[in-house]
Amino acid sequence: MGRWVIISTERARRPSDFSRSRETRKATECAFCVGHEHETPPEVLAFRSNGGPPNSKDWTVRVVPNKFPALRIEGELGRKGEGIFDMMNGVGAHEVIIETPEHSSDLAQLSEQQIEDVLWSYHDRVHDLRKDRRFRYILIFKNHGSEAGASLEHTHSQLIALPIIPLNVAEELNGAREYFRHKERCVFCDLIRQEREDQVRLVAENDEFITLCPFAPRFPFETWVLPKNHGEAFEQMTRHAHRNLARALRDILNRLNKVLDSPPYNYLIHSLPIREPEDGYYHWHVEIMPKLTKVAGFEWGTGFYINPTPPEDAARHLRDAWA
Amino acid sequence: MGRWVIISTERARRPSDFSRSRETRKATECAFCVGHEHETPPEVLAFRSNGGPPNSKDWTVRVVPNKFPALRIEGELGRKGEGIFDMMNGVGAHEVIIETPEHSSDLAQLSEQQIEDVLWSYHDRVHDLRKDRRFRYILIFKNHGSEAGASLEHTHSQLIALPIIPLNVAEELNGAREYFRHKERCVFCDLIRQEREDQVRLVAENDEFITLCPFAPRFPFETWVLPKNHGEAFEQMTRHAHRNLARALRDILNRLNKVLDSPPYNYLIHSLPIREPEDGYYHWHVEIMPKLTKVAGFEWGTGFYINPTPPEDAARHLRDAWA
Repeated sequence: MGRWVIISTERARRPSDFSRSRETRKATECAFCVGHEHETPPEVLAFRSNGGPPNSKDWTVRVVPNKFPALRIEGELGRKGEGIFDMMNGVGAHEVIIETPEHSSDLAQLSEQQIEDVLWSYHDRVHDLRKDRRFRYILIFKNHGSEAGASLEHTHSQLIALPIIPLNVAEELNGAREYFRHKERCVFCDLIRQEREDQVRLVAENDEFITLCPFAPRFPFETWVLPKNHGEAFEQMTRHAHRNLARALRDILNRLNKVLDSPPYNYLIHSLPIREPEDGYYHWHVEIMPKLTKVAGFEWGTGFYINPTPPEDAARHLRDAWA
Repeated sequence: MGRWVIISTERARRPSDFSRSRETRKATECAFCVGHEHETPPEVLAFRSNGGPPNSKDWTVRVVPNKFPALRIEGELGRKGEGIFDMMNGVGAHEVIIETPEHSSDLAQLSEQQIEDVLWSYHDRVHDLRKDRRFRYILIFKNHGSEAGASLEHTHSQLIALPIIPLNVAEELNGAREYFRHKERCVFCDLIRQEREDQVRLVAENDEFITLCPFAPRFPFETWVLPKNHGEAFEQMTRHAHRNLARALRDILNRLNKVLDSPPYNYLIHSLPIREPEDGYYHWHVEIMPKLTKVAGFEWGTGFYINPTPPEDAARHLRDAWA
């Protein structure tokens, strides 16, 4: 029914492997720490100021293939039917961005420069992977804390390149395209304009980015960071914008840490699919979702969410974080 | 963008209220236990063999409004716009089905008769609530265990009546309608036929119900229970089918308990919306989803799922549960 599922036999587990109290692995024996470069698959990107060879020390950000990938880069899609079902091979890229050489569990505690480097690594990987014509969408995301799905403590983000445009992405694009068709305006530009007037859901602003709690958020303290000037794809961002996004991201993650006592969270970069023409209707942005409530039967059954915290309250708490 | 969110101020919380280790409440002081009837809102339904008055002891199954409802039964929908946003009042019913008078945390341990009584309570509540013309969909679901979103230990299920057809439900209906339009056959009837031939994803069968691990399951050990004869709405089930569904449900929940060491889970009844004509394309069923993995950034971003357990493996383990 239009739903795709990745059956990842790389990760296949026996029933007894589903430990219910799986914890994030701790600092001793961390394969992401400087000096342990040989414990990961060979890097696909690293920033080194001293120009050292690949997989040597002295990097600031390092990108490696996921050791247990959900998808594999080799092979053909091979779409085929099996009775009423459709199948294809799990072709794709699954990479890990190691955000710092020193063991730290929190991106928010890194310097602005370091966070900017992380953003540049996202940028460079997207530009490299979009050359592969099999891929249609690249998702960059971060799971922070075991409750948000992180299996390693050392702060990192992930990138997945996919041969199809996922359903959730297609729905958001369709909504934005529909709005644009009626009004000939970008719905996100309109949203930013309205939120700056209303003020009540606004959290912070800098020269180029705005941070707000969206209307009708799925989760308590869900927060979005959007470029104030229209832009459709994350990877088209200017050099200057990288600095300002690092600043905005560092600011909101620290506000969330302060107000919610360092919650687990996910963030996702929502960006135009890599082969889609820039027709003016979409507007890339970052969505941050602290993991404070549990998704249960109601949410699975309906696809909509019960949120105990109005976004106006969340925004007020986040605005007042430094007060 | 077509997404609805319930901002439930009944449950509004301050940031400090989001305890990350919220546990299910224990047996002492359980408002769902027999003798504590005054601690819940007045019942809307109860089965009593002795014909005692409402809210007295000696019930077998008892249905009460949720004390902290996500939606309220009073009032008008009052759809309105606010700039680019749409709002309506949270009108709906939110009820709790208390599945047994004795404190037990596990539906699987109740007798077949008791589970059948629970199913009859679902049936009776749907028939009562569908008289209210404001409602368009009734979702019956169960959260078992705190990891699956249950906040009380005493075994219970929930019912929510909604003034709109939720997005996830609409998508499933559209998929089934589309299939029917092309083939003039019910996609679920075709699925049952194919699974009975293939055998590999089959778990169990009785006279009227089939239990299987679906192709492309979102979650490890996701399991469906479907009526073998075409039927579109749960609440149209015959008397005899209630008994057989109780038997099938009890069987699969005990198999899951055995194989996965009593996992937390959600189950959901997927049924035709209450005002939809029975045009032959839909087929009601129960979806059971053990909570073994964590939904993380990838799933939020794409809407599809990484599942480490092929359904053929899950089905084999469940078939062999009693071996």
